[in-house]
Amino acid sequence: MDRSQPEASATTPLNVPDLIQRKRDGAAHSAAELHALISGYTRGEVPDYQVSAWLMAVFFRGMTPQETGDLTLAMAESGDLLDLSSLPHTVDKHSTGGVGDKTSLILTPMLAALGLSVAKMSGRGLAHTGGTIDKLESIPGWNPELSDEAFLKQAREVGLALVGQSRNLAPADGLLYALRDVTATVDCLPLIASSIMSKKLASGAQTIVLDVKVGAGAFMKTPEQGEALARAMVQIGEHAGRNVRAVLTDMQAPLGRLAGNALEVQEAIATLKGQGPQDLHDLCVELAVEALTAAGFPEQARDRAEASLQDGSALSRFRAFVEAQGGDPSFVDDPSRFDVAPGRDEVLAQTGGFLSSLDALSVGRAVLVLGGGRERKGDAIDHGVGVELLVKPGEAVTVGQPLLRLYHREERGLTRALELLRDGVTVASTPPAPAPLILGRIG
Amino acid sequence: MDRSQPEASATTPLNVPDLIQRKRDGAAHSAAELHALISGYTRGEVPDYQVSAWLMAVFFRGMTPQETGDLTLAMAESGDLLDLSSLPHTVDKHSTGGVGDKTSLILTPMLAALGLSVAKMSGRGLAHTGGTIDKLESIPGWNPELSDEAFLKQAREVGLALVGQSRNLAPADGLLYALRDVTATVDCLPLIASSIMSKKLASGAQTIVLDVKVGAGAFMKTPEQGEALARAMVQIGEHAGRNVRAVLTDMQAPLGRLAGNALEVQEAIATLKGQGPQDLHDLCVELAVEALTAAGFPEQARDRAEASLQDGSALSRFRAFVEAQGGDPSFVDDPSRFDVAPGRDEVLAQTGGFLSSLDALSVGRAVLVLGGGRERKGDAIDHGVGVELLVKPGEAVTVGQPLLRLYHREERGLTRALELLRDGVTVASTPPAPAPLILGRIG
Repeated sequence: MDRSQPEASATTPLNVPDLIQRKRDGAAHSAAELHALISGYTRGEVPDYQVSAWLMAVFFRGMTPQETGDLTLAMAESGDLLDLSSLPHTVDKHSTGGVGDKTSLILTPMLAALGLSVAKMSGRGLAHTGGTIDKLESIPGWNPELSDEAFLKQAREVGLALVGQSRNLAPADGLLYALRDVTATVDCLPLIASSIMSKKLASGAQTIVLDVKVGAGAFMKTPEQGEALARAMVQIGEHAGRNVRAVLTDMQAPLGRLAGNALEVQEAIATLKGQGPQDLHDLCVELAVEALTAAGFPEQARDRAEASLQDGSALSRFRAFVEAQGGDPSFVDDPSRFDVAPGRDEVLAQTGGFLSSLDALSVGRAVLVLGGGRERKGDAIDHGVGVELLVKPGEAVTVGQPLLRLYHREERGLTRALELLRDGVTVASTPPAPAPLILGRIG
Repeated sequence: MDRSQPEASATTPLNVPDLIQRKRDGAAHSAAELHALISGYTRGEVPDYQVSAWLMAVFFRGMTPQETGDLTLAMAESGDLLDLSSLPHTVDKHSTGGVGDKTSLILTPMLAALGLSVAKMSGRGLAHTGGTIDKLESIPGWNPELSDEAFLKQAREVGLALVGQSRNLAPADGLLYALRDVTATVDCLPLIASSIMSKKLASGAQTIVLDVKVGAGAFMKTPEQGEALARAMVQIGEHAGRNVRAVLTDMQAPLGRLAGNALEVQEAIATLKGQGPQDLHDLCVELAVEALTAAGFPEQARDRAEASLQDGSALSRFRAFVEAQGGDPSFVDDPSRFDVAPGRDEVLAQTGGFLSSLDALSVGRAVLVLGGGRERKGDAIDHGVGVELLVKPGEAVTVGQPLLRLYHREERGLTRALELLRDGVTVASTPPAPAPLILGRIG
């Protein structure tokens, strides 16, 4: 694999105050200006205090789609660029972050079964959001570290390889994000879009499918905001010559019925067997259709995606993938083998009626305090704890009916988790308006 | 003299990203917020990159007069606060910067002669602008350093004491200015006004008179910009309980006929004898009237100011001031004693007509290259070099008539200075529209 570093720029010296002033005064930057700014910042030659002033000017003045695309390319080129060109029909997937979102575990083997190549980097969880790598580590022996050579070989042979983010992908994004976080410049569409897409572009896949979460528990609170972000990301992809499509999905309640690392893998395996919860099943099919269409295989995409979950082909790819990365495949064959925490407790309905809402953030935080997530990078986690949704929003409930089940170990965090979950549940006398899972498609 | 430091704030911890976000979103800051931000920045607890993002947000959102006043007070309180309360009717003067501007040398002894107390800090020159301290150092023996006690004693007895900026006045201003300079946030009215006024407030005078220069050679290019700045500074003064008035004056051509340190002191002495050039004389009288009026002595202010230049009372204060600070008073009595550089050269009119413009900046730069100014802080300067305006804008000239005279030493910088001056001169066939010196008064 070629990890090319961008060449040291041999252009005229960058006048950063002039560049800030141009953005301040509403001008559009050239690709060369953005490349010089971002590479200079990554090399430590442009100081934080100039970049933060520039970021605030971008907040007020915005960026054209052309600028946003050029910025993203400059960020992608600030570190390693993965070369996946030896693989056929490479595809990557990104979610803007949710609770109980085990979609990648199901979608990626589906795509492999459907003839695409998935050579993907995934992250670990932080705070209330889980990470795909953490979930897979519930499977004894499964190893997120592969050499470049083994990574490509496995993607070629199995159709699916999944590793941790050990490569130096888009370091400019990490630097910019940390700076935005402390200078009130996070909430700016072109900066959000370029942050997500810079890592995806550096990761090298030709097709990228995006799951943009919308709702109280997500970064984008309204469908309008989600659509604007999705559109900006699709435009960046076009600018970079990639095939990008996005799906807007509701993220009020957790996806599926289980949250917590091993529990989510169990649910993913059930879904791969065609026995998953409806919302999770539907979302995976939807994303697969978008990926197939974007990659140039739109024919009967929905039927083929559905079939991959019914005929065992996606499950078989998942099993092969787990085994190829050192995991014990018997856990795939018999998911009851997972080390699920033995402690049980339940949240009961205080009144009868309809479960009108179940706050995803509360569930995510409950898993965190039970030990299933990490407060700080590097913290150890308990893969066996979690929360099960016994009732989904919209369903009728009676007084005393169990709504949520907690899987805990030695009551660690139990009191606080129960408190969080009780606060996250709303039972009303009338059923809530039906909330569609898929809010829109862009691309 | 009491140099009080502001107390370490015992308030709740400052959340800087929240504060930046509030300004970003158009809210007005409280006095407590601004004080916490500025004192935190001065102590090194708030990093440059947060302050620069905040400055850019201020650029876009502006500040209310209340906020600008509170910011200025916070900056003033970031260092020493001079206590001049033991002196009667203290007055200070500030000019936004000009070429050939020796006004302070004339105005301050006038004010002393008129019963006000001047205990003033002045700066040294940098680039094309001269500094009052540099000019006074043309007088052998004159010393800009006085103990706090001697400074106050002299101001009480002579009515005038003038020292260099050795005190730690408004250090936040120096920090903020350096940051603004490299982050494209210089050009922002509340920040310009607070920068100037913070040092004036810290300097302790009850009355402050401001000379706001307007024109191509000044920071404020139009009378509208100058008026807005003047108004902002007057409002800051009111907010701080000081008497502040401002005069807007034209700064296209240099003030008076001489530029260069010793030459300007000679011209100042002539003006103190009632024999100065009209523009300089008029401006000094105008500023004295404003100072007297602001200080509460408006009665016959113009007549009294004129009289101080005709009856020798201002000159006598100047002589006493020079002597009190170790200077040789015989230079005041006989200004021909100044060590003026012996080399002479002239710029001649290439065509006949009227001198339509004489660029102040070109004259300032010519003095600089002749050795009369400093490129960098700490450079030594030659007090004897300079430029004389033999013709003022509006006057008729004939071909070959000398327009400017250069006073140089061993031809140092002569070629470049001649070039600068030739470029700065415009002769036209018709006389320029008369340009009044005083463009407005605020306060």
